[in-house]
Amino acid sequence: MGSTRLVSAAHFLSRNFSHADMLESELKRAILSSVSHKEFRDILEYAVLPAGKLFRPRLVEAMALDLDKNFSRDHLHLACALEIHHAYTLVHDDLPAMDNDLIRRGKPSTHAKFGEWQAILAGDALLINSFEELMKINSPKIRELHRLFSWCTGGKGLILGQYLDLKSEGKVTTSEILRIHELKTARLIQVAIAGAAMISQKKFSRSFFRLGREIGITFQLLDDLNELTAESLSAHEKEINPFLLNPSQAISALQASFTRLEVLLRKEKLTHVNAMLESFFAGNRKELSQKSSVIFSHIGVDLQIELKGFL
Amino acid sequence: MGSTRLVSAAHFLSRNFSHADMLESELKRAILSSVSHKEFRDILEYAVLPAGKLFRPRLVEAMALDLDKNFSRDHLHLACALEIHHAYTLVHDDLPAMDNDLIRRGKPSTHAKFGEWQAILAGDALLINSFEELMKINSPKIRELHRLFSWCTGGKGLILGQYLDLKSEGKVTTSEILRIHELKTARLIQVAIAGAAMISQKKFSRSFFRLGREIGITFQLLDDLNELTAESLSAHEKEINPFLLNPSQAISALQASFTRLEVLLRKEKLTHVNAMLESFFAGNRKELSQKSSVIFSHIGVDLQIELKGFL
Repeated sequence: MGSTRLVSAAHFLSRNFSHADMLESELKRAILSSVSHKEFRDILEYAVLPAGKLFRPRLVEAMALDLDKNFSRDHLHLACALEIHHAYTLVHDDLPAMDNDLIRRGKPSTHAKFGEWQAILAGDALLINSFEELMKINSPKIRELHRLFSWCTGGKGLILGQYLDLKSEGKVTTSEILRIHELKTARLIQVAIAGAAMISQKKFSRSFFRLGREIGITFQLLDDLNELTAESLSAHEKEINPFLLNPSQAISALQASFTRLEVLLRKEKLTHVNAMLESFFAGNRKELSQKSSVIFSHIGVDLQIELKGFL
Repeated sequence: MGSTRLVSAAHFLSRNFSHADMLESELKRAILSSVSHKEFRDILEYAVLPAGKLFRPRLVEAMALDLDKNFSRDHLHLACALEIHHAYTLVHDDLPAMDNDLIRRGKPSTHAKFGEWQAILAGDALLINSFEELMKINSPKIRELHRLFSWCTGGKGLILGQYLDLKSEGKVTTSEILRIHELKTARLIQVAIAGAAMISQKKFSRSFFRLGREIGITFQLLDDLNELTAESLSAHEKEINPFLLNPSQAISALQASFTRLEVLLRKEKLTHVNAMLESFFAGNRKELSQKSSVIFSHIGVDLQIELKGFL
């Protein structure tokens, strides 16, 4: 995905942003259909909107354009289901008993703004709403889709990832962190990729599932790097950051995942997904290289050169 | 449903208890299929088992026997989905930020036993597991069933009920309490009744939905009466108990709901449901009449006579 290897995607990227507007209004519609009580609905809307990077919905869209040349109503429902589900996980993860984060997307986190029980209930309601949105997909594969979605998000997937994360208490290896990344971050991205393919009636391919994994791991490791530039890290954030635990292993893991990602994208000829990721990661890497001195202060000199080539 | 009006149901009741064993092992199977991590799974099992009164599953079973003469595999999945969902609501409701209950079913509540974030995550995993169980139902009406289930449990149903309950802060009327009972308690019971009917391919009838409502309201008002016999009530429990707020209105509501329930049961000729409820409420009323002096101490003399006729 270096810039020289990429398909030109200016047209796609411009279209992409108009879809983001559409998605925001669809998210509003989904929440409205699920909660009529104004005051309670305000909490759910606050947790979901204004939307973040819309990383998962944009992957669904890119997959739809690659496989179907069309971002259909069904793809839109999947995109909403994923974004709403993602919002629920953030609301619960931010709770005092979990990560105790007071700021999310540049504003007070949901419990900081509305209170703790309000945030627990809003998270629960968003979780159920994500399944409602999923079931609006008009596909003969709806049962498989539901199985994929619940397997990836439930007690064998995302929730287990958060459980292992909170349980780790500093006694954790690089490969355990990568396992947590796979569960906590990659699983929902795997639903975006493999779920979009199911809607497009493509034969199930293990490649799509692996692709989702590599996107998730790369995404999360870049996020870990970015976290090093934060003004302060909590004790737990320090323990669970692979670039602090073992910089050499972490850099190798990032490079390996990134390489596998490139291979898979070429193999599947997913030009829109490729373009979307290039745009996303390019922004990410630019930001990182601007703060590289802070990042480098955390890792040994020998590894700085290796990482510099990547940024 | 007075004993003179009831169909004899000894055979049903004896069968009923053997199904309870089957249900417990099915609940175990459902959790196992959803969580493989032993330590995390233990938390979910702790929250679900040993099962409580199995009120909702037993209603599904009675409906199945009334409409189909057969408690099928699909009814069993619905029964499991309801019981697992019910367990999730208890785990989250008991949290310190919610009702802050340390005891549930005679043992430490889930967060008291395992910790707060563990309970939040276990609740989330049970919620997802309940939808997984629901989707195992092999019915052409699966989409309708899913809509019913999510409407009744989500931000327009059960969760809204808990939101209104916690928000009430003592400024609440009897009719608002009844609305909370309808959302928090009756909605899941309406899924048991109307969902079982859907599986049995019966034409959708509003009667089933109303029947579920009356069962739920009666069930909850008897529970409110029973709560009066507790050794101590929290400030919020006192505020939200309709027999303390306005005993006259509460007794009227109980009598009215009970009467409508009898009418609906006769109209629909649901002999197994009738027998199951008779057995359940008889036990409940026996317990209440043993503690009637405590209950009577809370309400005026003139109303005691009216309530005595009921107990």
